Amino acid sequence: MNKVYLDYQSSTPVLPEVLEAMLPWFRDYFGNASALHELGIRSKKALTHAREQFAAAIHAAEPEEIIFTSCGTEANNLGVKGSAYALQSKGKHIILSTAEHPSVENSVAFLEKQGFTATRVPVDRQGRIDPAAIEAAITPETILIATHYANHDIGTIQPIAEIGAIAERHKIQFFVDAAFSAGWLPIDVTQFKTGLISLSAHRFYGPKGVGILYKNRKARLLSIISGGIQEGNRRSGTENVPAIVGAGLAMEIAEAEREKRVAHVSALQKRLWEGLSANIPYICLNGPLPGDGRHPCNLNISTEFIEGEGQLLLCNAAGIAVASGSSCSSKNLKASPVLSAIGQALTLMQGNLIFSLGKDNTEEEIDYVISSFTKIVERLRGMSPVWDAFQKGQVQSVITPAK
Amino acid sequence: MNKVYLDYQSSTPVLPEVLEAMLPWFRDYFGNASALHELGIRSKKALTHAREQFAAAIHAAEPEEIIFTSCGTEANNLGVKGSAYALQSKGKHIILSTAEHPSVENSVAFLEKQGFTATRVPVDRQGRIDPAAIEAAITPETILIATHYANHDIGTIQPIAEIGAIAERHKIQFFVDAAFSAGWLPIDVTQFKTGLISLSAHRFYGPKGVGILYKNRKARLLSIISGGIQEGNRRSGTENVPAIVGAGLAMEIAEAEREKRVAHVSALQKRLWEGLSANIPYICLNGPLPGDGRHPCNLNISTEFIEGEGQLLLCNAAGIAVASGSSCSSKNLKASPVLSAIGQALTLMQGNLIFSLGKDNTEEEIDYVISSFTKIVERLRGMSPVWDAFQKGQVQSVITPAK
Repeated sequence: MNKVYLDYQSSTPVLPEVLEAMLPWFRDYFGNASALHELGIRSKKALTHAREQFAAAIHAAEPEEIIFTSCGTEANNLGVKGSAYALQSKGKHIILSTAEHPSVENSVAFLEKQGFTATRVPVDRQGRIDPAAIEAAITPETILIATHYANHDIGTIQPIAEIGAIAERHKIQFFVDAAFSAGWLPIDVTQFKTGLISLSAHRFYGPKGVGILYKNRKARLLSIISGGIQEGNRRSGTENVPAIVGAGLAMEIAEAEREKRVAHVSALQKRLWEGLSANIPYICLNGPLPGDGRHPCNLNISTEFIEGEGQLLLCNAAGIAVASGSSCSSKNLKASPVLSAIGQALTLMQGNLIFSLGKDNTEEEIDYVISSFTKIVERLRGMSPVWDAFQKGQVQSVITPAK
Repeated sequence: MNKVYLDYQSSTPVLPEVLEAMLPWFRDYFGNASALHELGIRSKKALTHAREQFAAAIHAAEPEEIIFTSCGTEANNLGVKGSAYALQSKGKHIILSTAEHPSVENSVAFLEKQGFTATRVPVDRQGRIDPAAIEAAITPETILIATHYANHDIGTIQPIAEIGAIAERHKIQFFVDAAFSAGWLPIDVTQFKTGLISLSAHRFYGPKGVGILYKNRKARLLSIISGGIQEGNRRSGTENVPAIVGAGLAMEIAEAEREKRVAHVSALQKRLWEGLSANIPYICLNGPLPGDGRHPCNLNISTEFIEGEGQLLLCNAAGIAVASGSSCSSKNLKASPVLSAIGQALTLMQGNLIFSLGKDNTEEEIDYVISSFTKIVERLRGMSPVWDAFQKGQVQSVITPAK
């Protein structure tokens, strides 16, 4: 087993009290929430309570604005494709950024094959979207602006309220992918001026199997999973009651503990980056500095003159669990589209690592990671012909050494 | 709480040993199955084991033919829409029956809005599909035959192997909705000659939140949830590991116990119908007689001269949990499309009831239901102006009294 788990962005354990709350819904209260008998009505009430918990957490006007899906990816598909299908009579143009999660990017790509068009607004070197660029991309055909709150790859927090104000001014539907943000960053749907926002429960100590799509009354949406009339006709299929009960409680606890959790991980994030950058030359951070508009859990680093796979193997051997590339497709060892979008040098796009923190990480763990990873880099560079060539002045660095 | 639960078709409790097997995957082994560290690899292995369990149960050639989705409805959407999108360059015509589950029927309706066409082959008075009618509906444009194994509403078991042979002869992709059959009826994908078959775990004492789509190597399929490369690029989104672990074990146990369970519920099904039809005049069974090509759990009855809502309310008051109409949309009190498809009289289509049996029902429970429901019908007819008119010879019955 890994000694130090630093991949909380890809999944968290379920809180003990959340699991405890779920158990009766597997065993005793197993009714289908669409059934009209007592067990069914009990399940339906449990769903309503969970809707209330989510509505409170994100300042939604009413519980009915919460739609349960099976994961963040499905919530993003529903937000993007469901908007496009609902609004296609008004136009077929979608605006997104070049740094979206694959579930948003590939949903738009799927729609493009069906006759929709899209403008991908570039991001800057830190991964930030320029709201003015979004506004400049608007055409009379534009029906949807789809972007993210915090970047899944490099942690950049986007100026959502500013983009929301533009969307509102132009009366364009606005979808926000907050699957990596919920539980960690404040979400206020009225302040964001967004009609659609997605969350994912297993990123904040809730169970896998629950995505959430907030949809206000004004937003137009067509269901993408056809069938029965569950979730107000917006998502067919038997609701996963135990997991939804757990997700609601996890959201409530995450909001109650958010400031404490964020203070804790922010300090560790800073400690980790300061330790790594002090020890290791030719290492760079992808995305903003800790505290400067970055998700408090995420640290994405590129280390020059070493191979990506070697890093992962040696981290595993040292008992450190980290992710490479997108946590949704770590096995896909292709260069990250987000690093490409921020214009990262090709040699730094291969084999970057994402350290992502959780509420239970400790300073001792971070210090162990700093010293272990320093040794790993030294060992890999000792084996690297490119590092050797660099030492002899035959190749150049593409980054300046970290301060 | 209900004293007698007879709505197992809409959901079953999770077996204690299945829940026990799921628990570590919430708490300890919470890694994302796409991650390359130890916790991730452990999750991935658990998914592979569950795939093996499903492959064994349905005689699939290899575990990779098993795709996990979030529910039977999603598996049906993927089977139908995913086939249509993958094959649309060859043609745009789909064949189904008039008695499909809403998730199949509405998936096809969704595709029809996108330029696909469909032929809905009628069923007979028992809900049976005539394979010759399927064959007659085939055109050079036909890309998919989509139908069900056992009917979700009236329990009719379809001649799947015969339809499969026709599909194979004409080289047309064949999708079978077995969401209500898996765990209760034998499934052999090679015998069925089907490339795609859907299952649903919470119908055989597994957890909610897991649908399964079997897809053999020859079947063509496009993903309908876009994003990462999970499930071999056929279903994006973080896999719900705990629930999938539970589903695999529930399938294994269901297959091991199937004959015993079926013998038990079949006897109760026969006892219930014989008791009801002996006690209550002007009651009729929708679908085949028990033992004559009917799902062993399902009993769908229509009782003349009483109102549907009254039956449900009084069953609830008597502690009997039953379903009205489709278990996927019981709240939708519109007449069942399946009863319409079998040509049931309008007065018998309103307020039919579905009693569905589980492995833990007892003879005592069935006898209680027979006597309680007999009294409920007497009470409701005592209040019914139509029954009064019938007694006076002013209106006619549309059914002959049961034997």
